[in-house]
Amino acid sequence: MFFHYKGLQFEAKPDKTDPVLAKHLQELLGGAFGEMTVAMQYLFQGWNCRVPGKYKDLIMDTATEELAHVEMIATMIARLLEGAPLEAQTDAVNGNPVVAAIIGGTNPQHKIVTGLGPALTDSAGEAWSGKYIVASGNLYADFATNAAAEMQGRLQAVRVYNMTDDPGVRQMLAFNIARDTMHQNQWLAAMEELEDDGLEGLPVPSHFPESDQNNEHAYTLWNLSEGDDAASGRWASGATPDGKGQFSFLAEPVPLAPEPVLPPAPPPLYGTPSTGGGLVQKVKDVLTP
Amino acid sequence: MFFHYKGLQFEAKPDKTDPVLAKHLQELLGGAFGEMTVAMQYLFQGWNCRVPGKYKDLIMDTATEELAHVEMIATMIARLLEGAPLEAQTDAVNGNPVVAAIIGGTNPQHKIVTGLGPALTDSAGEAWSGKYIVASGNLYADFATNAAAEMQGRLQAVRVYNMTDDPGVRQMLAFNIARDTMHQNQWLAAMEELEDDGLEGLPVPSHFPESDQNNEHAYTLWNLSEGDDAASGRWASGATPDGKGQFSFLAEPVPLAPEPVLPPAPPPLYGTPSTGGGLVQKVKDVLTP
Amino acid sequence: MFFHYKGLQFEAKPDKTDPVLAKHLQELLGGAFGEMTVAMQYLFQGWNCRVPGKYKDLIMDTATEELAHVEMIATMIARLLEGAPLEAQTDAVNGNPVVAAIIGGTNPQHKIVTGLGPALTDSAGEAWSGKYIVASGNLYADFATNAAAEMQGRLQAVRVYNMTDDPGVRQMLAFNIARDTMHQNQWLAAMEELEDDGLEGLPVPSHFPESDQNNEHAYTLWNLSEGDDAASGRWASGATPDGKGQFSFLAEPVPLAPEPVLPPAPPPLYGTPSTGGGLVQKVKDVLTP
Amino acid sequence: MFFHYKGLQFEAKPDKTDPVLAKHLQELLGGAFGEMTVAMQYLFQGWNCRVPGKYKDLIMDTATEELAHVEMIATMIARLLEGAPLEAQTDAVNGNPVVAAIIGGTNPQHKIVTGLGPALTDSAGEAWSGKYIVASGNLYADFATNAAAEMQGRLQAVRVYNMTDDPGVRQMLAFNIARDTMHQNQWLAAMEELEDDGLEGLPVPSHFPESDQNNEHAYTLWNLSEGDDAASGRWASGATPDGKGQFSFLAEPVPLAPEPVLPPAPPPLYGTPSTGGGLVQKVKDVLTP
Amino acid sequence: MFFHYKGLQFEAKPDKTDPVLAKHLQELLGGAFGEMTVAMQYLFQGWNCRVPGKYKDLIMDTATEELAHVEMIATMIARLLEGAPLEAQTDAVNGNPVVAAIIGGTNPQHKIVTGLGPALTDSAGEAWSGKYIVASGNLYADFATNAAAEMQGRLQAVRVYNMTDDPGVRQMLAFNIARDTMHQNQWLAAMEELEDDGLEGLPVPSHFPESDQNNEHAYTLWNLSEGDDAASGRWASGATPDGKGQFSFLAEPVPLAPEPVLPPAPPPLYGTPSTGGGLVQKVKDVLTP
Amino acid sequence: MFFHYKGLQFEAKPDKTDPVLAKHLQELLGGAFGEMTVAMQYLFQGWNCRVPGKYKDLIMDTATEELAHVEMIATMIARLLEGAPLEAQTDAVNGNPVVAAIIGGTNPQHKIVTGLGPALTDSAGEAWSGKYIVASGNLYADFATNAAAEMQGRLQAVRVYNMTDDPGVRQMLAFNIARDTMHQNQWLAAMEELEDDGLEGLPVPSHFPESDQNNEHAYTLWNLSEGDDAASGRWASGATPDGKGQFSFLAEPVPLAPEPVLPPAPPPLYGTPSTGGGLVQKVKDVLTP
Repeated sequence: MFFHYKGLQFEAKPDKTDPVLAKHLQELLGGAFGEMTVAMQYLFQGWNCRVPGKYKDLIMDTATEELAHVEMIATMIARLLEGAPLEAQTDAVNGNPVVAAIIGGTNPQHKIVTGLGPALTDSAGEAWSGKYIVASGNLYADFATNAAAEMQGRLQAVRVYNMTDDPGVRQMLAFNIARDTMHQNQWLAAMEELEDDGLEGLPVPSHFPESDQNNEHAYTLWNLSEGDDAASGRWASGATPDGKGQFSFLAEPVPLAPEPVLPPAPPPLYGTPSTGGGLVQKVKDVLTP
Repeated sequence: MFFHYKGLQFEAKPDKTDPVLAKHLQELLGGAFGEMTVAMQYLFQGWNCRVPGKYKDLIMDTATEELAHVEMIATMIARLLEGAPLEAQTDAVNGNPVVAAIIGGTNPQHKIVTGLGPALTDSAGEAWSGKYIVASGNLYADFATNAAAEMQGRLQAVRVYNMTDDPGVRQMLAFNIARDTMHQNQWLAAMEELEDDGLEGLPVPSHFPESDQNNEHAYTLWNLSEGDDAASGRWASGATPDGKGQFSFLAEPVPLAPEPVLPPAPPPLYGTPSTGGGLVQKVKDVLTP
Repeated sequence: MFFHYKGLQFEAKPDKTDPVLAKHLQELLGGAFGEMTVAMQYLFQGWNCRVPGKYKDLIMDTATEELAHVEMIATMIARLLEGAPLEAQTDAVNGNPVVAAIIGGTNPQHKIVTGLGPALTDSAGEAWSGKYIVASGNLYADFATNAAAEMQGRLQAVRVYNMTDDPGVRQMLAFNIARDTMHQNQWLAAMEELEDDGLEGLPVPSHFPESDQNNEHAYTLWNLSEGDDAASGRWASGATPDGKGQFSFLAEPVPLAPEPVLPPAPPPLYGTPSTGGGLVQKVKDVLTP
Repeated sequence: MFFHYKGLQFEAKPDKTDPVLAKHLQELLGGAFGEMTVAMQYLFQGWNCRVPGKYKDLIMDTATEELAHVEMIATMIARLLEGAPLEAQTDAVNGNPVVAAIIGGTNPQHKIVTGLGPALTDSAGEAWSGKYIVASGNLYADFATNAAAEMQGRLQAVRVYNMTDDPGVRQMLAFNIARDTMHQNQWLAAMEELEDDGLEGLPVPSHFPESDQNNEHAYTLWNLSEGDDAASGRWASGATPDGKGQFSFLAEPVPLAPEPVLPPAPPPLYGTPSTGGGLVQKVKDVLTP
Repeated sequence: MFFHYKGLQFEAKPDKTDPVLAKHLQELLGGAFGEMTVAMQYLFQGWNCRVPGKYKDLIMDTATEELAHVEMIATMIARLLEGAPLEAQTDAVNGNPVVAAIIGGTNPQHKIVTGLGPALTDSAGEAWSGKYIVASGNLYADFATNAAAEMQGRLQAVRVYNMTDDPGVRQMLAFNIARDTMHQNQWLAAMEELEDDGLEGLPVPSHFPESDQNNEHAYTLWNLSEGDDAASGRWASGATPDGKGQFSFLAEPVPLAPEPVLPPAPPPLYGTPSTGGGLVQKVKDVLTP
Repeated sequence: MFFHYKGLQFEAKPDKTDPVLAKHLQELLGGAFGEMTVAMQYLFQGWNCRVPGKYKDLIMDTATEELAHVEMIATMIARLLEGAPLEAQTDAVNGNPVVAAIIGGTNPQHKIVTGLGPALTDSAGEAWSGKYIVASGNLYADFATNAAAEMQGRLQAVRVYNMTDDPGVRQMLAFNIARDTMHQNQWLAAMEELEDDGLEGLPVPSHFPESDQNNEHAYTLWNLSEGDDAASGRWASGATPDGKGQFSFLAEPVPLAPEPVLPPAPPPLYGTPSTGGGLVQKVKDVLTP
């Protein structure tokens, strides 16, 4: 169960109206790596966590914080939209390039649909999707996914930070960027803890018997793109990070199986070749190599 | 530019018809972490790669291999569907639980839409989406995302492996699982190489000035879920993985900013409160705290 | 900012394993009218609320409660999935209709993707979408939308209640159904309060000048489907609910404007008829009536 | 079965070219509350209606009218696009802010994909979705949903009306706005009629036995957001709109159930903790509180 | 403007309850090539048609008919669902394979969401999308798309026909299949008429100047898949269907352009390599070939 | 299995930076008829092809080429984005209409998400979907779909060609347009070959027994839109393209079946009318005609 404080985790107040920036900030709210994604991803990981104690508590602490981030960005967008011109028509431009930029650079739904409020979409206007979140039940895989998500998220926040000089917006983003720093670190630390606790390791899932995978092909780089520049990286020779093998480089790979030849589909489906209803001899000719 | 060999990278032939398993295998073809996702993710990372040489070559080698995996799973699905009963109606069951399972456990589109061929959907029938792929231009963030994707992908492949005993399917999956082992290792190795080459590191993006982030909040865990189990993990004290800070634990966090109070929307949008057209005194009462 | 309690708002524990029921319950979690929708809808309405005080507080109280409902359903689904058979193949049925039902009636992603955890999808496996939520900035329109959502939601909960006899599931649903009763009532009461406060009324938005709408067509039912049964309802005569007009019935409607005739598209777009490049006389013939 | 008249229900002719306005008008065509949604929503309610007579006739009358509205908006968009500049490149601006606005404010698909025709998307370019429509089989719930949709739709139409001064566009919108007035009123009237006919009432579904819901929690507001402003509204005390209870206010709510603790997932799924394959003692330590 | 007749274009009454078949029939209603797609596709082509007269009339005649087909399939689905068991739980099977099939083979939303009514989804439960329709403004391209859609649609209808022996369902499908025959023929005839009228031809758009396309590459098959079986088809030699060239076969194709090498991204985006903030000498090493 | 050449099939290098054009070009990459669609469509047709030999080889040749086209467009977009201003805020315009156009006309995700790389979306920013591809197993239907897709694709390419005068972009498009010419021709030729080989013909699927379709309705145009202009086209009289019938024109069509009357839904679903729980006499009145 949750409780809501009226105060924001951190201030979210721009210095001036900016509907164009509001549109851009939607990426950090409802984009694939926006606050909504990490909030929901961590919540579902918490609810799907079958290890009671420190891991679940860490997940729920962070999930709950991300809800506060959704709130902060949503509030910032609402404030950036205040005071924006509401025109929807070409001749409103009236020789003013700023108005031209606003007409082009604003999401129309910020006016027509939400009435100056945030939308649950990304910066291109595409709705947030439940498919963005990952909660597999395997904590190591999920923490790795979380760490990567925080990298993508911090990268995007830094980009938006560099695209504006509004002090209020930068102040908030500086906080978000710092939190992303923490979250990158904590998920990486949690992966180490899982290894130390003997719960999981590389390759994920690490308890799957090596005898059941095709070990011959477990540590070889297939050279399927022209040139062998890749042979010089540390992924092509030496010990593997999982400590269980040696990288090798397959310079001239060939297919290991012949061309698959599929039999005809059954007549009721009327695929090609169909054998349903008066087919002539030519079918056989085609089918006989 | 690409060239296609008729042979498969590895054999993809089941021992027997199994339309239910075909539906499940769709997850490994068109799911969020299926072969289609990694194929397209790596291709777009390659086309978006602005470091010529070993990194780009590694990406394109792997991208091209994943196309071959898409082909293998697609072929396996087509073969698993061959010979399946085509009924769409209840009374086809005729007392036979196996037919009941097939009627319920088969994706109807495998019959009606593709005529026993694979679909570009996941195991629940949802279409593959271009939103699944990640190619940010930051190789470290992307390689971390790739490693995580290979963990999720191997986890799913292992689960399906354990859910069938068909020797042909298991043989193919044992190969895919091995390749996922390689790919987990190679992306982790590539992240190390990026650090060794001084191109990128933690926190991503590592060249963003520390002075621009809010450092006070960069290494603290906010205790926002009841209980302090999380305080005992290595993410709550000690050195951080990025080597730049010390974890701390904020046991009793409070909001750092007051409740945001938003002014009314402009009259032409008719939000609440509206000031457009004959509003009575009560509006003022509501607006005046 | 939010705080998370470890306890659930209400118990969510089934009496027995039931993966089929778990799939059905997904509708109440991630369907268009599931708990996720109302939670996010109310949060965004709160963050978009420009009337400080009782209305915003009501919205945030309810939004926060709905997050607890998401948690309850998610937990229930995780528990219903525990102990389910994991087979993905036809011959696992082995003559057992129950296994057949489970193979067909379970969402494969509950096994392959979430590892017995809930997914952010509906009962047909389609991902939850940010497009499901409504937060327009007009509280009356939004409260009406909320009341309708709670009706649809309670209807769905009642249907699932009637589709199972598991005491634990029914106990939880009886609580959810009661809360839906409260929420239907509270949003309807809040609509009345908005009217009493002079903030909004019918037709929404009520402050739009009547002189700007085409009043001639504001209270007439057009009889565009064969038969005049509809003429006998109270929507076809008498005073209108908004107290501003009298219903009337247009028995034999005709179009009020002539057929639209569109001019050719410009040559660079190569629409039909194109005038770009050597068009013969016949074009004119076609274009000249 | 349907018949199509060539004439439009009402004139849809703008006074001048305006591709920016055309993009905005897409919201009223293919947005979540656009004409397409209500047309399809009412059609499916009609086809799903199991009460012959006046209700079904009302639904089909209105559904058929909404098809005419789709046609009107589609025609208006096609006409607004006529004469627009077709440039896709930056230097076409040539110092002209109006061209800049058009380049930014036009949906590129209006040129590339539809060749100056309407698209079945909203104003942000997102495709219309079948998930937008509601047809539950419960007429009261559906009419409430319809009334709310007409409120959101009228609100959006009014906003666009205020965002343009094109006389032709305003003339059409004034008609649409009037029709939305009618439709709000008619669905509310139809809800009353359902109550008068004894078919349905509050809380929906009203025939579900009170004894089966958890009545203790049916009329209480949980105070889950800081502050008790909400206690002063009429939703917190007094009789409830359904006439079956008294509102109350739960000032200091606590969770009613303990923290859920989930057992480990089965080994074949390799969740955490996994018990599959050589797990060390540490697992037990973690699992033992 | 439209008018609705209460009668159906053709009878849509099954002989018996069959919720499994209802789920399958959803493909013909809301699938990518279902009746909804062709109805909306033709409507938007009509509203986007800039040739008054016979073409537009043909399009609108057919569009209006397809609405009647949507109605027929929707009605059939509602009737197939009547009388189906409503269980959502595993133990409802009670040893009965037919119930097992129904539990697995029914779309849960037919019970929970629509209450035995049709949904606007396909047979896998995915919502119908506005992206399915095509209306480009070029009638030849669109009629070709229509003809292809009618082929896919008839193919799917035939498959479902073969998957059931319910006389009522087959009777309706026999009608739909016949209409698809007509529509395939009519669109092909309309393409010929467009050519005869000099409005459009091959290659579409045919009025684009040949001098502007790269004619050297306009009629050659690139042999990019191992083996030269394709060289024996009529697409590899002889006159081309557009009457403007001769097919040829490029047996050993090579890339016509060198590997693209992209420069670094600008520092504010923090791509790799980044030049923003303290990059060491190694970057130069990587960038210098 | 595939192999990747570093060189491009054809040069993809613009003469100058143009982020607006980059956004437009996304349509040709990730739109419904972009290169991604035809690449994946042909790949899945190839993997679903059950006729070994020339047809499969043709499909795989073309599929593999389309992958090279995806690469070309992706590269072109990356290059068009280089050097673009990165501002996200209104006052960056600073009186410059070109900047205004760029702010409005650029996809924000090209900066925030991909860091100047291509995205797997269309020009409106909507993600590419697996639903765009068609692979039915019936080659004639699929080749017709392919030919239509190449017409739509060439039309879009021509439109973009006409919307820019960048020589580098035009040079690449002139190549793509030529390839579309080839592909239109080859699929049409392949349809003829299928007919010549006796594998398939009109109406698709041609081997479905004529006796099973309702022949009375197989060649008649229903006049369901006001006016009879359509009666003058060759689709209304004369021989049909499939050579099996004569077109006719049904001038005054009427419904062939009576209004469908559906019985009440079962009580547990609480549809209207519900028979569950204390319904009054009025229900019977409504249900009794």
